[in-house]
Amino acid sequence: MELEFLGTVAGMPVRDRNVTSICLRLLQERGSVWLFDCGEGTQHQILRSTIKLSKLEKIFITHLHGDHIYGLPGILTSRAYSGGNSPLTIYGPKGIRDYVTSVLLISQAHLGYDLHIEEIPESLNEGIVFEDDQFLIETAKLEHRIDSYGYSITEKDQPGPLLIEKLQKAGIPPGPLFSQIKKGIDITLENGEKLIASQYVGPKLRGRKVVIMGDTRICNTSPQIAMDADVLVHESTFTEDLCDLAYKYFHTTALQAAKLARDSNVDQLILTHISSRYQDEGLDRLLQEAKSVHENTHIAHDFWIFPIKRNHE
Amino acid sequence: MELEFLGTVAGMPVRDRNVTSICLRLLQERGSVWLFDCGEGTQHQILRSTIKLSKLEKIFITHLHGDHIYGLPGILTSRAYSGGNSPLTIYGPKGIRDYVTSVLLISQAHLGYDLHIEEIPESLNEGIVFEDDQFLIETAKLEHRIDSYGYSITEKDQPGPLLIEKLQKAGIPPGPLFSQIKKGIDITLENGEKLIASQYVGPKLRGRKVVIMGDTRICNTSPQIAMDADVLVHESTFTEDLCDLAYKYFHTTALQAAKLARDSNVDQLILTHISSRYQDEGLDRLLQEAKSVHENTHIAHDFWIFPIKRNHE
Repeated sequence: MELEFLGTVAGMPVRDRNVTSICLRLLQERGSVWLFDCGEGTQHQILRSTIKLSKLEKIFITHLHGDHIYGLPGILTSRAYSGGNSPLTIYGPKGIRDYVTSVLLISQAHLGYDLHIEEIPESLNEGIVFEDDQFLIETAKLEHRIDSYGYSITEKDQPGPLLIEKLQKAGIPPGPLFSQIKKGIDITLENGEKLIASQYVGPKLRGRKVVIMGDTRICNTSPQIAMDADVLVHESTFTEDLCDLAYKYFHTTALQAAKLARDSNVDQLILTHISSRYQDEGLDRLLQEAKSVHENTHIAHDFWIFPIKRNHE
Repeated sequence: MELEFLGTVAGMPVRDRNVTSICLRLLQERGSVWLFDCGEGTQHQILRSTIKLSKLEKIFITHLHGDHIYGLPGILTSRAYSGGNSPLTIYGPKGIRDYVTSVLLISQAHLGYDLHIEEIPESLNEGIVFEDDQFLIETAKLEHRIDSYGYSITEKDQPGPLLIEKLQKAGIPPGPLFSQIKKGIDITLENGEKLIASQYVGPKLRGRKVVIMGDTRICNTSPQIAMDADVLVHESTFTEDLCDLAYKYFHTTALQAAKLARDSNVDQLILTHISSRYQDEGLDRLLQEAKSVHENTHIAHDFWIFPIKRNHE
């Protein structure tokens, strides 16, 4: 479970930073990748990464501004060209269905795979958008010029590891009994001895929580969705001297994002969606402003891969 | 007057070739640039060139397949961000207006400049799309899976240069008289002598003709529009061994394009929109096939700039 940042600049591309897209790599967990937002040129960034378009399983869109969605039609058609034939689901605000279907229709694109589009109802302020055995994806409406959403990705807890040494000491041979115990099934040995499975399995692995925010001011919803995240990815368009501009354009400063992280018990804060006015020293200033209240902060750059650890253990 | 190739691959981008866009640089002629097609990532290519988005005056679209239009919304919005505030006109097949306006509306983009969209009527098989003192742009319908057009750009003839030495020998001092003569106005000197302007001006400069074809099979219209071009830019998706595939998918082979150039008295043929299956040796084979019937042929690559000379003098 890793994040790979495919685009980290706000508004329009610059030479070394593309517009927003974030890949959640779940290759070990489910052999697939998910995208959060898909600015123009995301497929070109993927060409320069190790990500395979055919592994793309889900796309979550935070809001409908161009720098977050203009890469969608191209990625959908190129996925078909690249041997992607499994179903793909897009989740996003009301309007995403019209956008995708009308562009594909006008350009007479034939995907050759099942495309599902699930719109978040406009009336929904928070709720579940997807759940299976492994993951729970919840969303909540933020505060931007247009409807914009944050997504929290919660990995479900997993059984702990088998305590192999302890089992061997108890004289249990590796084999079918091991997997029964792993599943939590108590067993009775041939000599009549009873083994309580839970005594031979380590503590369960707490699932990780990653939160990816759309463009937004800090709002009431922000701490609700960010609470206890192992990793919070937050937009950070401006430094603090431009906090008036941030407020006017419904964006966030680095310091504001860091205060949110601190107050929401977030372990790792990652800043992205940075205005192109910040380079080198400017980026460093932005980072220092955030670190002054939340030390565990990084600024994302394009192609940066961040492994998600279980930091809250 | 130069062509700059911003994308030269068919279908989907590869690492070193983007999908179709061709820039006609008219900086000397009118201080602006025109684009022909605008695949996804064209604005990213422009970032890596010397072209300024604010100088973009016209965009001509050959057909509505995604690899020719998915870069339009992004280039329109980034032009606004880049200080482009002069009017911009898009010419293209029926459907281009719906595409552009619906995408801009859904993404709530505000351009801040006048955008004009001129659709080619479906019933029009050939006709004029634009004309001013400098240029005449004509279009003709080709033969593709969907309506696809070629554009011929004809520069108007320009007055010849003043014959400075001859004027000096006749005792005419540089100044207002020079510009009158340049304009073709006969003048009477103070001594009563009459000067016939045309005797002091060199032969007029014949305007150049550039033809840029959309995706197509070779068809009846092809030689009509290509005739006598100084430069013909033609798609060349396949080599001759795949001519059945070319026919099936309404595309052209390199050899077919070269025969068209030869039979239409074209000076320079430039092949583009090459299938990504061709690299290095494959590209060389494609080029040799074309050169076997039309020696004066190049294969375009991304960022290649080709100055358009008056080759037919």
